[in-house]
Amino acid sequence: MQNNFTIFNTLSKKKELFKPLHPPFVGIYVCGPTVYSHAHLGHARPAITFDLLFRYLTHLGYKVRYVRNITDVGHLENETLGEGEDRIEKKARQEQIEPMEVVQKYVNTYHKNMDQLNTLSPSIEPRATGHIIEQIELIKTLIKSGYAYESNGSVYFDILKYNQKYQYGKLSGRVLDELINNTRDIEGQDEKRNPFDFALWKKASPEHLMRWPSPWSNGFPGWHLECSAMSIKYLGEEFDIHGGGMDLMFPHHECEIAQSTAALGKESVHYWMHNNMITINGQKMARSLGNFITLDQLFSGDHPALEKAYSPMTVRFFILQAHYRSTIDFSNEALQAAEKGFQKLMKAIDSLNKMKPSDHSTIDLIKLKEKCYEALDDDLNSPVLLSHLFEGVRIVNSVIDGTEKIDVAGLEMLKSLFSTFVFEILGLKDESAGLNDDKLTGNLMKIIIDLRQAAKNNKDWSTSDKIRNELKNAGVVLKDLKDGAEWEHE
Amino acid sequence: MQNNFTIFNTLSKKKELFKPLHPPFVGIYVCGPTVYSHAHLGHARPAITFDLLFRYLTHLGYKVRYVRNITDVGHLENETLGEGEDRIEKKARQEQIEPMEVVQKYVNTYHKNMDQLNTLSPSIEPRATGHIIEQIELIKTLIKSGYAYESNGSVYFDILKYNQKYQYGKLSGRVLDELINNTRDIEGQDEKRNPFDFALWKKASPEHLMRWPSPWSNGFPGWHLECSAMSIKYLGEEFDIHGGGMDLMFPHHECEIAQSTAALGKESVHYWMHNNMITINGQKMARSLGNFITLDQLFSGDHPALEKAYSPMTVRFFILQAHYRSTIDFSNEALQAAEKGFQKLMKAIDSLNKMKPSDHSTIDLIKLKEKCYEALDDDLNSPVLLSHLFEGVRIVNSVIDGTEKIDVAGLEMLKSLFSTFVFEILGLKDESAGLNDDKLTGNLMKIIIDLRQAAKNNKDWSTSDKIRNELKNAGVVLKDLKDGAEWEHE
Repeated sequence: MQNNFTIFNTLSKKKELFKPLHPPFVGIYVCGPTVYSHAHLGHARPAITFDLLFRYLTHLGYKVRYVRNITDVGHLENETLGEGEDRIEKKARQEQIEPMEVVQKYVNTYHKNMDQLNTLSPSIEPRATGHIIEQIELIKTLIKSGYAYESNGSVYFDILKYNQKYQYGKLSGRVLDELINNTRDIEGQDEKRNPFDFALWKKASPEHLMRWPSPWSNGFPGWHLECSAMSIKYLGEEFDIHGGGMDLMFPHHECEIAQSTAALGKESVHYWMHNNMITINGQKMARSLGNFITLDQLFSGDHPALEKAYSPMTVRFFILQAHYRSTIDFSNEALQAAEKGFQKLMKAIDSLNKMKPSDHSTIDLIKLKEKCYEALDDDLNSPVLLSHLFEGVRIVNSVIDGTEKIDVAGLEMLKSLFSTFVFEILGLKDESAGLNDDKLTGNLMKIIIDLRQAAKNNKDWSTSDKIRNELKNAGVVLKDLKDGAEWEHE
Repeated sequence: MQNNFTIFNTLSKKKELFKPLHPPFVGIYVCGPTVYSHAHLGHARPAITFDLLFRYLTHLGYKVRYVRNITDVGHLENETLGEGEDRIEKKARQEQIEPMEVVQKYVNTYHKNMDQLNTLSPSIEPRATGHIIEQIELIKTLIKSGYAYESNGSVYFDILKYNQKYQYGKLSGRVLDELINNTRDIEGQDEKRNPFDFALWKKASPEHLMRWPSPWSNGFPGWHLECSAMSIKYLGEEFDIHGGGMDLMFPHHECEIAQSTAALGKESVHYWMHNNMITINGQKMARSLGNFITLDQLFSGDHPALEKAYSPMTVRFFILQAHYRSTIDFSNEALQAAEKGFQKLMKAIDSLNKMKPSDHSTIDLIKLKEKCYEALDDDLNSPVLLSHLFEGVRIVNSVIDGTEKIDVAGLEMLKSLFSTFVFEILGLKDESAGLNDDKLTGNLMKIIIDLRQAAKNNKDWSTSDKIRNELKNAGVVLKDLKDGAEWEHE
């Protein structure tokens, strides 16, 4: 199986031709959500980015195993320093329910939102709490090989030891000496040989609810460990692609690399892919800034910063309008522009489906199709792909206004082009079906009531009665008023 | 908190007043699906039965923690004898994917079907593979207390030992001596002290994919063990209600009781509830009989045994029409009768919402409301509840035909009665919204086109043109044909 697909590998900092380890199989691991609150804009972007990757590789004929985890333990409040309360336990305390009830609630809403955004389900969606044994086994291996040490019931990864043989910081470009100088001393750090060592296993404090037995203590795994354990379990010691948001590059992915490399003696991941961040009106999204927008709020318009509701497909289109490695700034203006663009695209596809062919064609679609593939092959360049698809929109409109002609074969090819790239690969879908029915019914009823009034004005009682009876058969009841009529569903 | 809710306790074989251990909290554990194929009729019944229980207890004001597991390991083909291939591994082999890909696929379709049936998500949905450690710990306890023994890397539960102190078979009414006489010798039984001992841990054979380290072997847990481990973890050593299908009573629930009682030294479950089975045209549902109907097939009508598609709410209504402890026979006739009954109920509620009040009332709704509660309090007697709700339907129709009167307060009370019992507690919902819009549009367009044709026949061109223009404004394009006209959305 051949392809021209290139990926910008965050590790090598350059675009590389994608060569899967075991074609036709492709393994992808993507860091999923920590399920302690509602999914927000920051969850939509990686989900859509790697959904596009999943869809494109599948379209190219690969058998893709796409693993995206659910973090349901071990993600502490301060993730850089690896300290603070477990995010899920904190929420459980606030809501006075079990940690696993928090997990269930937010897994459910996450799945609902992902469905709305039309992202496909991953092939496997493993949970951290479901793989405690695998994480304990990995820690045993790391202790045995000297890269981890126990201290007071907790186990830490020894970064200095690792750095003697390997290079800590190679993904994010951080230099260990600088890290050492910039790491402040914090409480409990006396357990660690060095303050930047990170936890593989934490002994549970007395009030900690989520805990499991281990050779070291009753405790819980460190946040970084789950991804190493689960990617090895479901994709093997070496696999093709690891994805996630750029904010996870340090320390999360850096620690993953250290863990897996130390345990396996080799690089585990062949291609690292990171989507860039989003901003809102130029600012970082943060609860403290009042611009923290959940997906539910975005879809309903129920947030002071939103002028209106934006449909899931508007949001998907908006995210795809930027290359995944660029930042995106959310604003009402930009979203409304995306909404218009998306509607224009859908309208053109609708017109195309009703179009009658000419006996000859004046347009070259083969070139256009090639350009669409070239855009995707260029590190999933979805904005360039969209610009080519809008060339298709221009063609549709030119055929409608008569400046271009399209024959039967051309019509089929253009339909197939939109079907493949817009729906199958970009994962957009037409949201209008069914939406405007109420409005249409209202308009049609207005026409019928006016016609009946005209008949009555002409004393054409047979027509007037006939209309009433036919409406009744259709399930609509007319009620005559002094000046006109009201109607309702039977 | 007081209540009059009675439950038929399968263990005591009688109806008992429900007294929760720690009001206002209630804990419910229900055996969920083994996710190795599409959900079928047999999954719909327990899901709807215990959804009704969950909804009713919540309505009564209890804070319910509803735990329903996902079995993703250990359920072998022959569940009575505890032998054969793991169902999920077998499917993985057939579909040439990872066992966890099988799990993900069928968890997704199960959730989709449960959403269609309008069952609420459980509070926690734990998975067997996510609780291997808890199962191993429970086995250790059982070995320590002498109720389990290791043999060749596997661990078995010692039923004779258990029966010396407790009573094996008390739930299902099986007598141990009879079991002993009826148990045939099967392969591998030499590992067991007695052929009816059941596995707590199985040493994995070389080809077995799903395996975890344990003190006894690399292996996997027995099917019965997960429910004891997970119910104790999430509901405590003693909890209120354990539910499941009657087919699970033996051996599954019997073994659960033995495990929990032996480990804890006391009864774990206070109320056992079992829904009865379904048949299809009087026969047991079985793949070999060709009457095995998945929920997707039922909802789409795509099965030779089905005369048409039945909507999820028709199925839900049909299941609620029988008491959960009675058998139900599915047939086209019975489903079509349920469909009519459900539509009649929805139509009455719709009429009620449009009804204008009289200045006095001739009906007694307080009594009706009491009877509705009495029905539910009587071990969730949903068919009797439905008969009371149809008394409400009769009232609506009597008001319409003028034989009864209802005032403002009565109208509000009747609306509230339907809202509470039909939608909130029985979990039915109106499916017609949006569904018939296409048909309605077609009917209205036919009326308009006929009127326009009449205008044209009268050479009333101004009316004919006006209709065309108004339709255009409404987004509908007319195309005149030799004999009539076609229309399409713009």
